[in-house]
Amino acid sequence: MTGDVLGLLRAELGAQVDTSPAALEDARADKSGHRASAAPLAVVHAETVEHVQATLRIASATGTPVVTRAAGTGLAGAANAGGGEIALSVRRMTRILEVSPDDLLAVVEPGIVNADLNAQLAAYGLWWAPDPASRAISTVGGNIATGAGGLLCAKYGVVRDAVLGLDVVLADGRLVRMGHRSVKGVTGLDLTSLLIGSEGTLGVIVGATLKLRRVVPGDVCTIAATFPTVRAAAAASSAVTAAGIQPAIMELMDAASLSAAHALLGLPAPTPGASQLTVQTDGPAARTEADAIAEVLSAAGGTVSATYDRDEGERLLAIRRAMHPAMESLGNALIEDVSVPRSQMAAMFDEIARVEREHGVEIPTVAHAGDGNLHPNFVFQGEDVPQVIWDAADDLFRAAIRLGGTLTGEHGIGLLKRRWLADELGDDQWRLQRDIARVFDPAGILNPGKVFEA
Amino acid sequence: MTGDVLGLLRAELGAQVDTSPAALEDARADKSGHRASAAPLAVVHAETVEHVQATLRIASATGTPVVTRAAGTGLAGAANAGGGEIALSVRRMTRILEVSPDDLLAVVEPGIVNADLNAQLAAYGLWWAPDPASRAISTVGGNIATGAGGLLCAKYGVVRDAVLGLDVVLADGRLVRMGHRSVKGVTGLDLTSLLIGSEGTLGVIVGATLKLRRVVPGDVCTIAATFPTVRAAAAASSAVTAAGIQPAIMELMDAASLSAAHALLGLPAPTPGASQLTVQTDGPAARTEADAIAEVLSAAGGTVSATYDRDEGERLLAIRRAMHPAMESLGNALIEDVSVPRSQMAAMFDEIARVEREHGVEIPTVAHAGDGNLHPNFVFQGEDVPQVIWDAADDLFRAAIRLGGTLTGEHGIGLLKRRWLADELGDDQWRLQRDIARVFDPAGILNPGKVFEA
Ligand SMILES: Cc1cc2nc3c(=O)[nH]c(=O)nc-3n(C[C@H](O)[C@H](O)[C@H](O)COP(=O)(O)OP(=O)(O)OC[C@H]3O[C@@H](n4cnc5c(N)ncnc54)[C@H](O)[C@@H]3O)c2cc1C
Ligand SMILES: Cc1cc2nc3c(=O)[nH]c(=O)nc-3n(C[C@H](O)[C@H](O)[C@H](O)COP(=O)(O)OP(=O)(O)OC[C@H]3O[C@@H](n4cnc5c(N)ncnc54)[C@H](O)[C@@H]3O)c2cc1C
Repeated sequence: MTGDVLGLLRAELGAQVDTSPAALEDARADKSGHRASAAPLAVVHAETVEHVQATLRIASATGTPVVTRAAGTGLAGAANAGGGEIALSVRRMTRILEVSPDDLLAVVEPGIVNADLNAQLAAYGLWWAPDPASRAISTVGGNIATGAGGLLCAKYGVVRDAVLGLDVVLADGRLVRMGHRSVKGVTGLDLTSLLIGSEGTLGVIVGATLKLRRVVPGDVCTIAATFPTVRAAAAASSAVTAAGIQPAIMELMDAASLSAAHALLGLPAPTPGASQLTVQTDGPAARTEADAIAEVLSAAGGTVSATYDRDEGERLLAIRRAMHPAMESLGNALIEDVSVPRSQMAAMFDEIARVEREHGVEIPTVAHAGDGNLHPNFVFQGEDVPQVIWDAADDLFRAAIRLGGTLTGEHGIGLLKRRWLADELGDDQWRLQRDIARVFDPAGILNPGKVFEA
Repeated sequence: MTGDVLGLLRAELGAQVDTSPAALEDARADKSGHRASAAPLAVVHAETVEHVQATLRIASATGTPVVTRAAGTGLAGAANAGGGEIALSVRRMTRILEVSPDDLLAVVEPGIVNADLNAQLAAYGLWWAPDPASRAISTVGGNIATGAGGLLCAKYGVVRDAVLGLDVVLADGRLVRMGHRSVKGVTGLDLTSLLIGSEGTLGVIVGATLKLRRVVPGDVCTIAATFPTVRAAAAASSAVTAAGIQPAIMELMDAASLSAAHALLGLPAPTPGASQLTVQTDGPAARTEADAIAEVLSAAGGTVSATYDRDEGERLLAIRRAMHPAMESLGNALIEDVSVPRSQMAAMFDEIARVEREHGVEIPTVAHAGDGNLHPNFVFQGEDVPQVIWDAADDLFRAAIRLGGTLTGEHGIGLLKRRWLADELGDDQWRLQRDIARVFDPAGILNPGKVFEA
């Protein structure tokens, strides 16, 4: 069987089929810390829509599972390809097919890296707003397939707000064009939205019509404020939201994150216990808004420093951007991703403190405070996530759901969170979603075992 | 059979079941001009989620079709209930269950009228942005079920951007809660988006968690500009978009619309052939933006008048708001709803002129010019849409699709546009969408013959 599939792939796709040990090894893991227990059959490096279609036709005919992969920066194990599976990489499909400044749209292939796209759009005074912290290494197609968020999304929206249409190859190799080039359109069901965040379970995105924005004119102002406790910092961020000011960025770091980032960057250690909010405003009203925010943060007990200088602002934000490497310097990190209504941020931090206490683990946490999305980091040593950490994570997820939140704000379910999916959705909705996936992929060859497997 | 269904409904729902001739008659039509050829079995006036569930359980058990209805202001015939069908009205479910200013969300029942909700939200300094021209008479649930747009949506978004979660009763009576209270969430497939614009084919929306905005502070400035031709007006609106200024409202009226509205309002007749753009800016930068737009419009050959006064601005907009009654004063109107990429607006007006010429019909047209959504009005006399008008409409839809557009920007498919659905979607996608609807409603009892029937 394996021989057959490989033979068929090679016969039809020739040089695109890669079975080098390095490629197979690479396809086993994303950035979640999880690795498939065996290597896939082959990596197909698709360079055209036809390559994708041919691969899926062969997979369908032979009943072979296909794991679509882009940059492999995911944090849920969703792109990890294992024994008997084809890893279908779209990473080489990197062309920008069209930029239309008049219609504020671009048509792109899925494998282009987010930052590369934005570098090219800058020449037109345009940008694609989704800005995951991984934008320099993750792809537009991966961002869409995961429904990625980012630092700017409280003000400028998430992926769902920034996609007009998608070209999708179905499990049997047929190509379907979903959505519109027009801003508005309600023709039938909104399949474009359904594909966003579908993590490779419904089809392979081979083209995307993106909704662009004009580069925002004006200043960028940055405020850093430290607070004696994480609860005080969370309450201060809620006060900013409640004051009706919309920052571009509002990031929170708890004491453990802040000191790890300082240590990594060689900065003086912060005051013990201190948490930090880093807030950025932009646009024509950036200065007025920054001044107003600084006042709110002072009134909330923060020690505030502010700058109207872009570069100085980037230096303040660099501390937040150092979080991921700072965690990696401590060991392996399971990066979690709960999201709660903004008013529940402080309560969620209380829950994190409780989980730390009750399970005896440390959970350095950063948050996109403007939209209530927290990333608790569970640091561990060794290859596999220890049971004590899964127990603590389980406790944490349930707390987030109790507070009206969700177990994933932007990273997705993948392999690592499928156990909790039905807890949040309820059994009826879980089954409905699984059955919808079966309409797209009746034989279940697309990313099997991800998202929906119990 | 009919006797059985009615008996079962009465036994379980008692006073909610209405078979008065007036109610049955009313349920046969929406505002599209189409009327079902026979009256439905009964109207059920649901006041609670349980009423909806009980109705659907009985409908499922007896295989009786159910047409969900709200205010009946739809323009696609989607809410029209006919012979052998139950009309399930959610119009009496009007409660606001929660307003959370801190989380910028509200939880409401579906039958509340858009303007009533916004009147109550105003007390909190909040609003729900979707603003169909029918906001004073249409419901929030109807707006969601149709994916309604409105005048403000180029700047403040459509319904899809303003809903966090939905409570939905499935065809068999089960209640499913979709979406989130948190701003972000990517847990599984985005069923909330799938329900938006589903026109009663997937389930009955019995509750909605809405994403609110703060009332925009600052001025409202209004600009009216007349142009010698509709092409010039369309080109001027594109120039505004291309200048990177985002008006709150930008409405275009062609010569026929403008003179009909003037006549209705008793205003002096406009210059023959003249078309008009009405533009509104809001927010802290309203005046600067209005001045910049006035300059763009003058440069594009417009005769411009502008005001910083809110009431004076409303008087200018009143001409645009008079469009619907102005058309009704001429006869029956089939209000179409094509949407094209913004750069294709002028080309679409050329196509409308061609269709007028070739089919010998007059098509007064208004457009939400900020987002490329045009409403060509086919005026006719008598009860039924004459064949010549369907032929002209057919020609118009195909032109819109050729220009990269869609046959419906905001009104939906319903009964009246199902013939063209597969033309736009392609057969593969049409079947995929229909099969997804079958997952929600295996027996096909929800709004049968709407949207997907060929
Ligand atoms: C340092 C770091 C910071 C991060 N910060 C953020 C953040 O701020 N916000 C955030 O949301 N995420 C973040 N992530 C997670 C990750 O970068 C995102 O999930 C990203 O969108 C994944 O893109 P990718 O190209 O790497 O996709 P992959 O990891 O290769 O794939 C991810 C999923 O998408 C599917 N997929 C990929 N391409 C396609 C396609 N063309 N068609 C169909 N399915 C496809 C895969 O099957 C898989 O299920 C971060 C990761 C790292 C390592
Ligand atoms: C003067 C006028 C101006 C208009 N302007 C606009 C405009 O600017 N933009 C725009 O988009 N539309 C506009 N419309 C069309 C119409 O008002 C909208 O489509 C509106 O959203 C319909 O709401 P409704 O409450 O009247 O729904 P109905 O007409 O009762 O129903 C419409 C559809 O939604 C379904 N439905 C209703 N409630 C539910 C529910 N709770 N659960 C499931 N399905 C449900 C019905 O089955 C039907 O398919 C206008 C109409 C008129 C008459």
